[in-house]
Amino acid sequence: MQLLEDRIRREGVVKEGDVLKVDSFLNHQMDVSLFEAMGREWKRLFDGCGVNKILTIEASGIGMACIAAQSFHCPVVFAKKTATKNIAGEVWRTSVRSYTHGRVYDVIVSRDYLGPADRLLLIDDFLANGAALSGLLDLAMMSGATVVGAGIAIEKAYQPGGELIRSRGIRVESLARIKSMSESGGVEFC
Amino acid sequence: MQLLEDRIRREGVVKEGDVLKVDSFLNHQMDVSLFEAMGREWKRLFDGCGVNKILTIEASGIGMACIAAQSFHCPVVFAKKTATKNIAGEVWRTSVRSYTHGRVYDVIVSRDYLGPADRLLLIDDFLANGAALSGLLDLAMMSGATVVGAGIAIEKAYQPGGELIRSRGIRVESLARIKSMSESGGVEFC
Repeated sequence: MQLLEDRIRREGVVKEGDVLKVDSFLNHQMDVSLFEAMGREWKRLFDGCGVNKILTIEASGIGMACIAAQSFHCPVVFAKKTATKNIAGEVWRTSVRSYTHGRVYDVIVSRDYLGPADRLLLIDDFLANGAALSGLLDLAMMSGATVVGAGIAIEKAYQPGGELIRSRGIRVESLARIKSMSESGGVEFC
Repeated sequence: MQLLEDRIRREGVVKEGDVLKVDSFLNHQMDVSLFEAMGREWKRLFDGCGVNKILTIEASGIGMACIAAQSFHCPVVFAKKTATKNIAGEVWRTSVRSYTHGRVYDVIVSRDYLGPADRLLLIDDFLANGAALSGLLDLAMMSGATVVGAGIAIEKAYQPGGELIRSRGIRVESLARIKSMSESGGVEFC
């Protein structure tokens, strides 16, 4: 998606440790007009697939998932990274290793909001090693929901996550796919 | 706001420990068409106030803040509850006591995205003791930004937060104000 690639070229900053900083428009400060364009693009890609719910994970995925949901006319559910006492009753639960934070955390979704009637589009801001997206897939499988596919903003295509998820038979549509990046050379797209 | 009050009456569940469970439409599963109506109402209330940025806090505030930002044609910034290595450089930082989770956590915003040029609308899903909203106010004050006001979905008006924030001279517009609630008697609005 040209609009997103252009924005990454213009405002993205590559930092040591394989970090792409896009927090001026994507995951700290958020440009909702960009999110609208991304939502329309995912709708175009997954049109006719019967998506009736969007599943994302807190926190960076929530904004773009809500805006995308306007195109799909469906609700959003976000997986929570820790149990809170506000969620009573039964939950679907899995573990996710965060490479960014260097720890393992539990991810939960209430069973009330994820089940066999759901045809899910999974949405997240980044796909790198695939840990978060695998976690969402696990939760979907446990619940008996159908996963129509995954809409990703930025995929680090040189990392194993995309291949890992696609090898599980899941359609992944990433709006910007990074072939390589470096502090000196910037970002190169596929 | 009638639409929100009706929804709370229909789907809200009062649990022990002064918990109002609204996770079928507000803060776990999210009804974005309801968020659109809420965003339009905040826009009506704060129209002409020159809002040029929305500040919220992860995670439950992000969805409604992004949808509201469509009415205000401005970006959203969300305060993060823990420092991540993706935020380099300087941040505005304060501490917030979470009564829900029973602990104190740090809240940060990059100095790049909050400063004297910003005229802020603060948005959050709940106002009870006022801890989270006070934290956002602290960050805004540190940065030199102007706080136009706060847009809250649900205020527990019998708790001290609303009075606390208003006594600091901040305009607070809550779309549903709860006068009292109980497991047996349900929710009564102001």
